[in-house]
Amino acid sequence: MAGTDSSKQPTLAPTPAIILCEPQLGENIGTAARAMANFGLWDLRLVRPRDGWPNEKAINAASRADHVIERVRVFETLEEAIADLTLVYATTARSRDMQKTVLGPEEAATNLAAQIGSGRPAGLLFGRERWGLLNEEVALADAIVTLPVEPAFASLNIAQAVLLLSYEYRRHSEAGAALPFSDALAEVAPREELVGLFGHLESTLDQSGFFTAPDKRPTVVNNLRTMLERGKFTSQEIRTLRGVISSIDRRHQRPNPNRQKPGSNTD
Amino acid sequence: MAGTDSSKQPTLAPTPAIILCEPQLGENIGTAARAMANFGLWDLRLVRPRDGWPNEKAINAASRADHVIERVRVFETLEEAIADLTLVYATTARSRDMQKTVLGPEEAATNLAAQIGSGRPAGLLFGRERWGLLNEEVALADAIVTLPVEPAFASLNIAQAVLLLSYEYRRHSEAGAALPFSDALAEVAPREELVGLFGHLESTLDQSGFFTAPDKRPTVVNNLRTMLERGKFTSQEIRTLRGVISSIDRRHQRPNPNRQKPGSNTD
Repeated sequence: MAGTDSSKQPTLAPTPAIILCEPQLGENIGTAARAMANFGLWDLRLVRPRDGWPNEKAINAASRADHVIERVRVFETLEEAIADLTLVYATTARSRDMQKTVLGPEEAATNLAAQIGSGRPAGLLFGRERWGLLNEEVALADAIVTLPVEPAFASLNIAQAVLLLSYEYRRHSEAGAALPFSDALAEVAPREELVGLFGHLESTLDQSGFFTAPDKRPTVVNNLRTMLERGKFTSQEIRTLRGVISSIDRRHQRPNPNRQKPGSNTD
Repeated sequence: MAGTDSSKQPTLAPTPAIILCEPQLGENIGTAARAMANFGLWDLRLVRPRDGWPNEKAINAASRADHVIERVRVFETLEEAIADLTLVYATTARSRDMQKTVLGPEEAATNLAAQIGSGRPAGLLFGRERWGLLNEEVALADAIVTLPVEPAFASLNIAQAVLLLSYEYRRHSEAGAALPFSDALAEVAPREELVGLFGHLESTLDQSGFFTAPDKRPTVVNNLRTMLERGKFTSQEIRTLRGVISSIDRRHQRPNPNRQKPGSNTD
C-alpha cells in the first residue's frame, strides 16, 4: 500500500508488549495489530479473547500485519501475560479511585523507552471495548496512562489508543527520529543568478511602463526583490521564471494577423 | 461512553481545518470526525466526497461526534475548500518529486498552533483511501507532512492519520498560543488570492505559448505554483505580482494608436 517499502523487512527490535484484556471483537484485535505495525511494535498478547484464537476477523482487519499476527500469544490470565515484564502501564480513559500514579502518553513513552533501551521488557495494558480494564487489572500495573482527550468528547477505541501510544513510543525511542522520507530540496541558487532574474524582470518592467512614478521606483524594486528572494529559488526555478518573463514579454511583439490595424476598415 | 463528561459541551475554539479530498468511504469520514472530536477539532471539510453528503455510514461511524458532523462543509474544488486558510499542509505517505519542504508531525503541529494561536486559519489535507493526494493538490500546500512510520510497514488509513495529527495539534496548542510568530507568516494572504494569481499567470502563459508540450503542462504548472507558494506572499504582494504580469503582458497598451505599424515608414 502507499508508503510501504516492500524491500525492507520489519526488524523485530525490542518494543513494548501490547496486552489486550478480554478483547471482544476480532476486528479490533486486527486493527490494533495493524496500528502497532506502523510504528514498529510487534509483541501482541491476548488475555481470554472472547472469540478465541486464531480469529478470522482479526486476521482480515490486520491488513497484512502478518508478522504481528503470527506472533500473537494467548493467555488464560493477565498475570501470565505480563509475567516477564518489569514495567507495566494500564491505559484507561476514566479515573480510578486508586493510589496509582497517572501519566500522560509522553511520560509513559519516555519511561518505556528507557526501560526497553536498557534491556528490560515492558508493556501496555488495554481493556475491553466497553468497560476498559477492571480495577484488579489496573492494580497489577505500575501506573495508569491516560490520553489527553477533550473531556466533552472522549471516545477513543482500543485500536486508536494502541495507535497513539505506539506512535509516542516510537517518537521517544531511537527509531522515532527518522521520517520515512525527507525533502530532497535542491540548493538555493547562488545570489548572482537571483540578481540576474531581478535585472531581467526590472528591465522588462521598465520597458512595459510598470514604474509609473519614477521617484517610487527604488521602493517598488526593493519590495519585488524581497518577495522574490523569499522563494529561495533553485537555479532551475530561476531559469523557469526567466522563461516566464520572456514568454509574456514577447507576446505583445508577435504580429497578430487577426488584430485590427487602426483605420484598417478604410484600406 | 467511558471517559466522556456529558456535562461539558465541546467548546469550538479555533482549530485546524481537516480537509478530505475525494474520500471514498463514508465510514472513513465518520471515523475521521470521531478522531477529530477526541482532540477538540471540529472543522471538517470534504472535497467531492464520492458518495455525496449527508452520508449515513459517515454519521453512524462518527459515533455521536454530532458537533463535527453537523458542521461538515462540502466543496466542489480544493481551492474553494482552502480559500480562507493562510497555512495548509498536505499529509502524504509517499515522497513526491517536488521542491516542497517535508515536516514531521511535531513541527507541523507547532507551526499550526502558532498560526492559529495568532488568529490565522490553517488546515491539513488528506487524500483518497488508495491514492492519497494528487500532485496538483500537494502543490497548493505550504509543505508536506509525513508520519514517522516503520518503512517496512506503513499502512495508516485516513482516520488514523487524522487522529495522530489531531493529537499532536492538541499537544502543541496549549503551549502553542504563546509562541512568538515570524513576520513573514503573519500576513500571508488567504489561499484563494494565491490561487487567483496562479490563474492569472497560467492563462497569460497559455496565450503567450509558454507551455510548448501540452502533456508536460501539469508538471510545469505544479512546479510554478510550488515555487510561488514558497514566497508566502501577502495580499499586497499578490496584487503587485498581478500588476507585474499585466504590465509585461502589455494589457494597458492594447490597442495603441501610436504604435508603429509594420512598414509605416513607407506611409
